Amino acid sequence: MTFADILNLYNEQLKDIEERLVIPLGSEIGTINNLISSTINSGGKRIRPLLLLLTAGLSGYKGDYVTDLGTVIEYFHTASLLHDDVIDMALSRRGKPNANAIYGNNITVLSGDYLYSKAFLKLLDLPGKEYARVLTKAVVSMSEGEIFQLNKTGDLSLTIDEYLRIIYGKTAALFSATCECSALLGDLSPEMYKELRNFGLNVGYAFQLKDDVLDYFGDETVLGKKPGTDFFEKKNTLPVILLLKETEGDEKAFICELFLSGRDANDRMIEFIDIMNKYDIQNKSNAFLKQKVDAAASSLAKFPGSIYKDALSVFLQELNLRIN
Amino acid sequence: MTFADILNLYNEQLKDIEERLVIPLGSEIGTINNLISSTINSGGKRIRPLLLLLTAGLSGYKGDYVTDLGTVIEYFHTASLLHDDVIDMALSRRGKPNANAIYGNNITVLSGDYLYSKAFLKLLDLPGKEYARVLTKAVVSMSEGEIFQLNKTGDLSLTIDEYLRIIYGKTAALFSATCECSALLGDLSPEMYKELRNFGLNVGYAFQLKDDVLDYFGDETVLGKKPGTDFFEKKNTLPVILLLKETEGDEKAFICELFLSGRDANDRMIEFIDIMNKYDIQNKSNAFLKQKVDAAASSLAKFPGSIYKDALSVFLQELNLRIN
Repeated sequence: MTFADILNLYNEQLKDIEERLVIPLGSEIGTINNLISSTINSGGKRIRPLLLLLTAGLSGYKGDYVTDLGTVIEYFHTASLLHDDVIDMALSRRGKPNANAIYGNNITVLSGDYLYSKAFLKLLDLPGKEYARVLTKAVVSMSEGEIFQLNKTGDLSLTIDEYLRIIYGKTAALFSATCECSALLGDLSPEMYKELRNFGLNVGYAFQLKDDVLDYFGDETVLGKKPGTDFFEKKNTLPVILLLKETEGDEKAFICELFLSGRDANDRMIEFIDIMNKYDIQNKSNAFLKQKVDAAASSLAKFPGSIYKDALSVFLQELNLRIN
Repeated sequence: MTFADILNLYNEQLKDIEERLVIPLGSEIGTINNLISSTINSGGKRIRPLLLLLTAGLSGYKGDYVTDLGTVIEYFHTASLLHDDVIDMALSRRGKPNANAIYGNNITVLSGDYLYSKAFLKLLDLPGKEYARVLTKAVVSMSEGEIFQLNKTGDLSLTIDEYLRIIYGKTAALFSATCECSALLGDLSPEMYKELRNFGLNVGYAFQLKDDVLDYFGDETVLGKKPGTDFFEKKNTLPVILLLKETEGDEKAFICELFLSGRDANDRMIEFIDIMNKYDIQNKSNAFLKQKVDAAASSLAKFPGSIYKDALSVFLQELNLRIN
């Protein structure tokens, strides 16, 4: 089974979610509908809805709530992208002008608010309150992670634990909550519930780690953005943390100076990557990433064999290769 | 009974809400707690929680949920202020530096997100889903109103209906939802439920109308901000709409030019107010405001006599005088 096979397998259900996502959000304010539709249609790979479908299958669920949940989860993700782009002052996403570039910061911030609140409203239509509680907690963590990251901008003493706390909020919290929703749908035992949530957590960590490693070592044409974005924004991520562990004295001082010069070091990115290569940082980063993938695989192994389990194994292997 | 008497009457319950509001929000990220605490403590008059307490009393409710609801409503209001200040690029509120000035735009946007999501989470602890649904719909309308206002910035052809749509979203939606929560708490008949919701709606309209009139005709020392903020930001509000209805030809052209020069017309604010005075715009605006206060009074009149009804009458009269 390949990743393409998985996508085919879920073609119908992903299409349901896709159709739901692109239905105009029904605001009387045309700007909101246009901004959000164009953002939702800007080439996102619907990884979170796909993860929901696969893990809901794993937990034995066969009903329709996955369509609503998948839509809401993608709304939360999209709303966070809108605010992230304002914060990063980014003017493009996946190589195209983003909402920020077209509509300006102000309308983008408010459209993010609109999308968040519409998503909360949709959650109230699901049975009970647990789906809402699980996903809303993840949204709380998302803003915490982003703020913690801003606090730590340009901080070269960032520890691995602090870095993990940042990426928990940025990414892993919503992945974990997505899988927790599947655990709720499937009415799992407390033990298996925890395994599925942890599976999502580790997939989320791996996903963000992959993104952060690719930021230095990825291919520009595949990434749709220039490598070194984090470097230019003085965001300290795994590769820099590992590099600083390996170096000392003048070399370390040089790296610090280069990193802290941010955008001014535009021409010196290649130099920086050379030092990374000297210390084999790509492989060391990938080894760290692999730990998270292995932890996810270990949770997955506890589930009985099924087509969903096979598909999730392939999904995990993709994380070891290249998804973004 | 005076407005001060009402505040005394609700001293204990307002203190409960106040204590709840200032409890650190429990984020592990200190910046979030500091930013939100300082914003919550920046001199807000807790008009919405007070309105909730009074209308909950009016609807016969005697329980404890008002404390949670009052806290959540003030959270939503505060979160919207955080984002408004980013959008208006305001650096002060009530004469003091705001979150934006101290922490910067980015952390302020994300702290707004944090506060919104914490408020949604708290709503899930209330019984049922109706409180959550009513208030979340208001939050949806809040962002719609703000975006519509941004769309209409510098638009001199803004109609009264469009203006009312803006202030519905900005203010009246949350006031209406606040009173609807009281109607839910009190288990009112469908007819009285509607009256209480409409009461809140009209109080909300009146509240924002008052604010918009005071922006031109208020006293700087009382307002805590310079008059003409809306003028400088090219926000078309009731006084300008009414002025444009009264004038024609060269005079109208002159007013349009002055209004559209925004901040550049800083020195000419007095000139603008002079023309407003020539056409008695303050009184004409107040007459419009009075219609909303009267509509609210007419809903209130349908409730049986009680101390709450008396207090809400005083509350309404204050809107005809001066609250902000």
